[in-house]
Amino acid sequence: MITIAIDAMGGDHGLEVTIPASANVVDSHQQINLILVGLEAQIRKKLDQHRCANRDRISVQPASEIVAMDDPPALSIRKKKDSSMRVAINLVKDGVADACVSAGNTGALMGTAKFVLGTIRGIDRPAICAILPRITGSTYILDLGANVDVSPEILFQFGIMGSQLIESHEERSNPTVGLLNIGVEEGKGDETIKAAAELFKNSSLNYVGYVEADHIFMGGTDLIVCDGVLGNVALKASEGVAQFIMSVIKQEFTSSVFNKLSALAARPTLNAVKSRLDHRRYNGANLIGLNAVVVKSHGSADATGFRHAIEYAMKSSGSGLVERISQHIAARMETEAVRENASTA
Amino acid sequence: MITIAIDAMGGDHGLEVTIPASANVVDSHQQINLILVGLEAQIRKKLDQHRCANRDRISVQPASEIVAMDDPPALSIRKKKDSSMRVAINLVKDGVADACVSAGNTGALMGTAKFVLGTIRGIDRPAICAILPRITGSTYILDLGANVDVSPEILFQFGIMGSQLIESHEERSNPTVGLLNIGVEEGKGDETIKAAAELFKNSSLNYVGYVEADHIFMGGTDLIVCDGVLGNVALKASEGVAQFIMSVIKQEFTSSVFNKLSALAARPTLNAVKSRLDHRRYNGANLIGLNAVVVKSHGSADATGFRHAIEYAMKSSGSGLVERISQHIAARMETEAVRENASTA
Repeated sequence: MITIAIDAMGGDHGLEVTIPASANVVDSHQQINLILVGLEAQIRKKLDQHRCANRDRISVQPASEIVAMDDPPALSIRKKKDSSMRVAINLVKDGVADACVSAGNTGALMGTAKFVLGTIRGIDRPAICAILPRITGSTYILDLGANVDVSPEILFQFGIMGSQLIESHEERSNPTVGLLNIGVEEGKGDETIKAAAELFKNSSLNYVGYVEADHIFMGGTDLIVCDGVLGNVALKASEGVAQFIMSVIKQEFTSSVFNKLSALAARPTLNAVKSRLDHRRYNGANLIGLNAVVVKSHGSADATGFRHAIEYAMKSSGSGLVERISQHIAARMETEAVRENASTA
Repeated sequence: MITIAIDAMGGDHGLEVTIPASANVVDSHQQINLILVGLEAQIRKKLDQHRCANRDRISVQPASEIVAMDDPPALSIRKKKDSSMRVAINLVKDGVADACVSAGNTGALMGTAKFVLGTIRGIDRPAICAILPRITGSTYILDLGANVDVSPEILFQFGIMGSQLIESHEERSNPTVGLLNIGVEEGKGDETIKAAAELFKNSSLNYVGYVEADHIFMGGTDLIVCDGVLGNVALKASEGVAQFIMSVIKQEFTSSVFNKLSALAARPTLNAVKSRLDHRRYNGANLIGLNAVVVKSHGSADATGFRHAIEYAMKSSGSGLVERISQHIAARMETEAVRENASTA
């Protein structure tokens, strides 16, 4: 059995989304227990409103506070020690839960998780790793906003963590890794990215070189590494253009009676398109580099999206991800220590 | 009459694209002369293959060299003094042409244009300003790749240049200006962007605050300012996702006989969608901040795209853009000088 702690109060919609998603998950998966963390009376009341055949696999853990979406991370860590987010993370630390999922304030979630769970030894900074769709397969990308200033070493560690995530989640060994840059030629980019490229080249990672941002969706590289600013801009720009295109399609198919009729004929195909492009299927990003699995759901996710985030946490918690990263980093630190000793001897 | 110098050899497709586009432009617009710059025999031969009722408004200016798409900018400036790109820019400098258009190597074009034409007095760095579509209207965005490291002052100058471009091109006075960031809250971003925000706040620009990258396509801000790295990533990510979505639509509408039939019924609407999303309509980016109008076409543009870039140059060259920016910057320098004198008096 896998047990997941759910920050039931987090996100733009709180219980409206987390409760139906949780009910759906326990009814769809036999090997899972959920612990809903938050205001107990409200959670129980909401649970009673939802049909759930496997209610016995949902338990409630009371927590009296809620981290607001705009709470400063430092404040929420210091002052809200009984928040649903904090208590959910505590359950993971105490070994009661295998992983936790929250749609709450990203900065607070990352800060609290770092504080409570700690970072894997040898990893300087945890990162946010998401999965984005391609025509065939998908692209893993990190960091998506946790780290504004990064060093070449930190970018390289992102590469190690992302590669291990892919190996543990997908049937791809030795996944390809690219560095996001403003051109593919050698001389492109700033000093940080150039130094990072050297680290990647001289490593055991399957490094393929620089990639540009269109490559995220149209390329074939398994993992794309970047700092949190570029990752955020790439993700948000793509969300914006996807929304824009869907709006144009909707406008055109409703712009006249004839077009409405043609939309009727095309409806099954348009629905198939919509379903393939449904971003909710990609909801759930790993806060990677921590000593346990923490999954962030989009704050505005609906129940379908949040269900995907819980399922993603299930997959991650059974994958031995933390151990894999620990081993890889420990081996690297050892090699480096040997090399340093040799060079100073 | 407006005269535009065309780098006929530039871009991925050279004459295959520049010649039909030029023929089309002189036949569509009465008030325009084009000077095609490049290998004379080849240009004339290609011109003979295209129907053009107004051939008398196309002249040829010989240039014996071609800047390759991967030539290092510094090398092309120093060594290729008779390149089609350089000669086209010279024609603008000499007052023979009002503007020039090239689909060639971006770095070489920016470098050569800066070297030959010079930068407007008071402007530290020229930038690349493009126009991207929204549901209603369009968003101007700069910089798109010319400047990797920027200061707050340079970002602010981008704001002045972009605002003047919009005022001179569109019927929008006092356009709204946003700064691209990884969140809209005050504390977001690095020190550069925070200092830039202060400059914008204390200026006469219609500054609206930070915007995120989805806002480019879904927001309502007229101008978005960012450094060249973020601009490049936002643009490329959106190109990638747009291609991806179009591929999914195509795949789904051809995945079965039924779907092909529904595509037939929906074809007029799908064509309308395609036409609205056609990136060729947005081809043509201003190299802004120079002492003349230089327009960069996408290197891979086809004849339709390149025609749009020429038409964009026509619009720009009649708009008094350089004078507007000069006046605005001069006025600002004067105010600052007065303020400095006052504070030291």
